[in-house]
Amino acid sequence: MKVIEGGVTAAKGFQAAAVAAGIKKVDRTDMALVYSEIPAVAAGVFTTNVVKAAPVKWDMTLIKEREFVQAVVLNSGIANACTGIDGEKANKEMACAVAKKLGIETEAVLTASTGVIGMPLPVDKVVNGAVLLVEAMDGSLEAGTEAAKAIMTTDTCKKECAIEFEMDGKTVTIGGMTKGSGMIHPNMATMLCTITTDICITKELLQEALSEDVKYTFNMISVDRDTSTNDSYMILANGLAGNTKIIQKNEAYQMFCKALRIVTTTLAKVMAADGEGATKLFETKVIHADTREHAAILSKSVITSNLVKTAVYGSDANWGRILCAMGYSGVSFDADKVDLFIESENGMLQLVENGRMTEYSEELATAILSAKEVTAIADMKMGEAQATAWGCDLTYDYVKINGDYRS
Amino acid sequence: MKVIEGGVTAAKGFQAAAVAAGIKKVDRTDMALVYSEIPAVAAGVFTTNVVKAAPVKWDMTLIKEREFVQAVVLNSGIANACTGIDGEKANKEMACAVAKKLGIETEAVLTASTGVIGMPLPVDKVVNGAVLLVEAMDGSLEAGTEAAKAIMTTDTCKKECAIEFEMDGKTVTIGGMTKGSGMIHPNMATMLCTITTDICITKELLQEALSEDVKYTFNMISVDRDTSTNDSYMILANGLAGNTKIIQKNEAYQMFCKALRIVTTTLAKVMAADGEGATKLFETKVIHADTREHAAILSKSVITSNLVKTAVYGSDANWGRILCAMGYSGVSFDADKVDLFIESENGMLQLVENGRMTEYSEELATAILSAKEVTAIADMKMGEAQATAWGCDLTYDYVKINGDYRS
Repeated sequence: MKVIEGGVTAAKGFQAAAVAAGIKKVDRTDMALVYSEIPAVAAGVFTTNVVKAAPVKWDMTLIKEREFVQAVVLNSGIANACTGIDGEKANKEMACAVAKKLGIETEAVLTASTGVIGMPLPVDKVVNGAVLLVEAMDGSLEAGTEAAKAIMTTDTCKKECAIEFEMDGKTVTIGGMTKGSGMIHPNMATMLCTITTDICITKELLQEALSEDVKYTFNMISVDRDTSTNDSYMILANGLAGNTKIIQKNEAYQMFCKALRIVTTTLAKVMAADGEGATKLFETKVIHADTREHAAILSKSVITSNLVKTAVYGSDANWGRILCAMGYSGVSFDADKVDLFIESENGMLQLVENGRMTEYSEELATAILSAKEVTAIADMKMGEAQATAWGCDLTYDYVKINGDYRS
Repeated sequence: MKVIEGGVTAAKGFQAAAVAAGIKKVDRTDMALVYSEIPAVAAGVFTTNVVKAAPVKWDMTLIKEREFVQAVVLNSGIANACTGIDGEKANKEMACAVAKKLGIETEAVLTASTGVIGMPLPVDKVVNGAVLLVEAMDGSLEAGTEAAKAIMTTDTCKKECAIEFEMDGKTVTIGGMTKGSGMIHPNMATMLCTITTDICITKELLQEALSEDVKYTFNMISVDRDTSTNDSYMILANGLAGNTKIIQKNEAYQMFCKALRIVTTTLAKVMAADGEGATKLFETKVIHADTREHAAILSKSVITSNLVKTAVYGSDANWGRILCAMGYSGVSFDADKVDLFIESENGMLQLVENGRMTEYSEELATAILSAKEVTAIADMKMGEAQATAWGCDLTYDYVKINGDYRS
């Protein structure tokens, strides 16, 4: 397996484009298109928020009911959530404009929106933008990168990743892009993520791979504990790699899952590190837990605690907050058994042994926590299960960005 | 019923004291004592955190096993949590020193600690402080106020409240003090709160009143969604008011519950408003929900959302975040029916009608949100239940305070 350049256009038969449709106040790209030259099977995982944006409702229906789709149109700036029937109409018009220009059915076009909740999607602008997208699209890596940039909101960098591997003597590629830096606390899904692959696989197994993948990747990150109305993680597989079609959970299926996880873990970590206002990626590994589910709950409770996040920001080894956050997670454990370590490129240090503070050097602790990527490791001494969650520090800039997001 | 001056010494037969025992680095009071001149029945509600501080374990056992107690000794600066067997020994020595000097049993002394987790409680200092507390105590209102000040950590103001009412021709008084401004997300309990009353009531009914009260008061506030290791809400009732002993849930019991709720609601709101770094009290009322439990979950989800809290800080009417926070709360509702209002001393405004934005004035919205006390009201149009939760805004100062809390 080899990580390669590119994103959504890395796999065979995929094209992309980005345009400035004028949805955002500032003059930057705010619409993107991902297109498969032939119909592709699709799978998706979506937000569990009761308040679902219009595109989420649209996609959930299409993915459930259709065998094939062929495009995804995305916009940033406006979430098209809490917009009622008008929002659903606007969403369909966006899909329709793309479909018409491409000469495919409207129902072959998935949609995704991100931005301010409650504002109406400007139909004229997105319809016009949709046409421009189709005219502009091509299969270059640059086109994929431009698409990844167009879906950014408060993100400070574009997020894409691709991988290739051999299967049946053919080269299979998976590429993806994602956006998200605030309102990130995936629960069964996450922010906007579009993955494309040329693997040949059944729709059912594609969905199963995705649903399993999300548990270990996008469901393990959090920026601010807020689960968005628009979370969408979608994948299109067009089969152009020419591998023997995967119709059961054989070795080829496992290989696909492994490659997918490399792509999505990379994207998930980049998203956590680029959390709104973040200065650090903060990883928490819980090891020797009794079950994987418990390990996941414990590690997520640590990375979502505001008090832990501010301490990480201040490079303060306030480990009591980590134990405290595990303590209120709902998972039962013996606090008098826990060992706690911190680690970064600047070293590794045990802060706690059997629930009690070790005689560690505060100076070294601060040095370790001052790195750009910091890991906390909690050894529960209960079993063999483990899980890793990724978050970021809570900073002045998070408050600044969100204190006046709309203006 | 009449709200009166004072706190834990307002009720008959209670004394208090505060001393600087040297637990904190700075030269300020850090130990407090509350003493009942005669044995009192006691009840308590404690943190649900798996990681429980030594004083919490001590109190839970005593309140379960004993009919009467007579004192509460409290310290700030160190939480005595994650301190193992040594922490339990130190806690008992603190209780023992108070008991010896008072000439009562060690098991008649409840304890409470608040401050940094993981640091050992300095036994010599607290034992010495305990003796000084007993020597210094008296029944003046000032002594109660000094006790309320001594338990402050990052609090910016002391928190006390008292009320008196007539029962059987006698004057009954309830008074209390509390501390808490960070790591506040009560779950079955809350921060440190000590209530004293001279009412005559059975231990069982006192516990029932407390357990019911907490649901509507301390369980409805949050500063940072972190449930502490030390949350303790305790009440002592010494019977000196001379009312007919309450032995069933009669009218007198209801009157007591009502008075208690006034005291604890006042303390809860002050605590939310004094949240770390807070500039505003942010109240959320959910009305016409299907059940009270759902109304409580919905309202708490709004006040705990970092995105809502930063918007409140910026006086930005970003109402989509409020709907979003209700949407991921786990409670089911029809987003297309919700009405949303904001209110403060500067006016009232409907932002949302049936899930859609009204044509409200952003200028007026900002003016309303700029007040020191701001309320959001969500009308679910589902039933007759309602609930109110109290929180605060998320500010630069929260990050500042918690980025270097220990230093």
